[in-house]
Amino acid sequence: MVEEEKDTNTVMNESEGTEENPEDIVSEYTEEQTELEKVEQERDEIQERMLRVQADFDNFRRRTQKEKEMDRKYRSQSLTEELIPVLDNFERALQTEVKEESAQGFVDGMKMVYNQLWSALEKEGVEVISAQGETFDPHVHQAMMQVEEEGYESNVVVDVLQTGYKLNDRVIRPAMVKVNQ
Amino acid sequence: MVEEEKDTNTVMNESEGTEENPEDIVSEYTEEQTELEKVEQERDEIQERMLRVQADFDNFRRRTQKEKEMDRKYRSQSLTEELIPVLDNFERALQTEVKEESAQGFVDGMKMVYNQLWSALEKEGVEVISAQGETFDPHVHQAMMQVEEEGYESNVVVDVLQTGYKLNDRVIRPAMVKVNQ
Repeated sequence: MVEEEKDTNTVMNESEGTEENPEDIVSEYTEEQTELEKVEQERDEIQERMLRVQADFDNFRRRTQKEKEMDRKYRSQSLTEELIPVLDNFERALQTEVKEESAQGFVDGMKMVYNQLWSALEKEGVEVISAQGETFDPHVHQAMMQVEEEGYESNVVVDVLQTGYKLNDRVIRPAMVKVNQ
Repeated sequence: MVEEEKDTNTVMNESEGTEENPEDIVSEYTEEQTELEKVEQERDEIQERMLRVQADFDNFRRRTQKEKEMDRKYRSQSLTEELIPVLDNFERALQTEVKEESAQGFVDGMKMVYNQLWSALEKEGVEVISAQGETFDPHVHQAMMQVEEEGYESNVVVDVLQTGYKLNDRVIRPAMVKVNQ
């Protein structure tokens, strides 16, 4: 038979039991502090990320707005580029001399169409680059020839070989010019 | 003169001071828990706000992309609208009969210019709305007259009074037509 032992220690410790040991609280308190620091750091990181996303969004919006304005301003560029050679040919064709009286109606009709075509382009912001008599400007003029012409100052456009065009301040085709030396 | 006083209390309390009372820790621990919950809530709120901003940004980007494609597709609409009356007048003027042999060069030149103008528009996505012989379609045709014409089925376009134009599937001007009853 085994002898029964009475665990007196258990009995002795019973009085404590329900209450937490102050030392445990201190260690848990430290854990809580660490957890708090961790969550605070997370919060701060997310906050920073949010501010970055917000800033990116704002930048994107501003850039988009600007692009939209530019796109709108130059929306007709592509069609204008196609129409400039049409203008060239139209002008050349209109220079053909037609002597017959009976064909004058036809010629006048064509001149009217030319003016209407030009008005449509002008309405979209297309304009002729001024060149004749102006000081040579490499941003809008292209020098095809250097000449020595009396009565003109140096570096002045003496003659325009091909008309240049701008669309709302953007050069679509520079003016081809003769420049005085 | 003022009498000097010696603060004896200060000296007496000096022995406590450095060590924290366990009861104070328990109450601070509860405060820390509340603080942790507060910060966790802040973190979650910011997280949610960030996700919302991110989603708004994504939507904006998608919408902008779509708008840009549409703007690009119809960028020539404004100039095209101006050029359609030019085409009308050009066609009308070309119908003038010119009998003189010597003026044929001029006439041919003008026909060439007309074709070039039309090519420029076609390149930008402009096309004639087909009408003659087609079933009447109110989306692209505008009925100017109802006629009773033999040899045509009911609701079919018998004649085109004015050419209609589309720009990349968008009707710029409907075709004005005569429709069979």
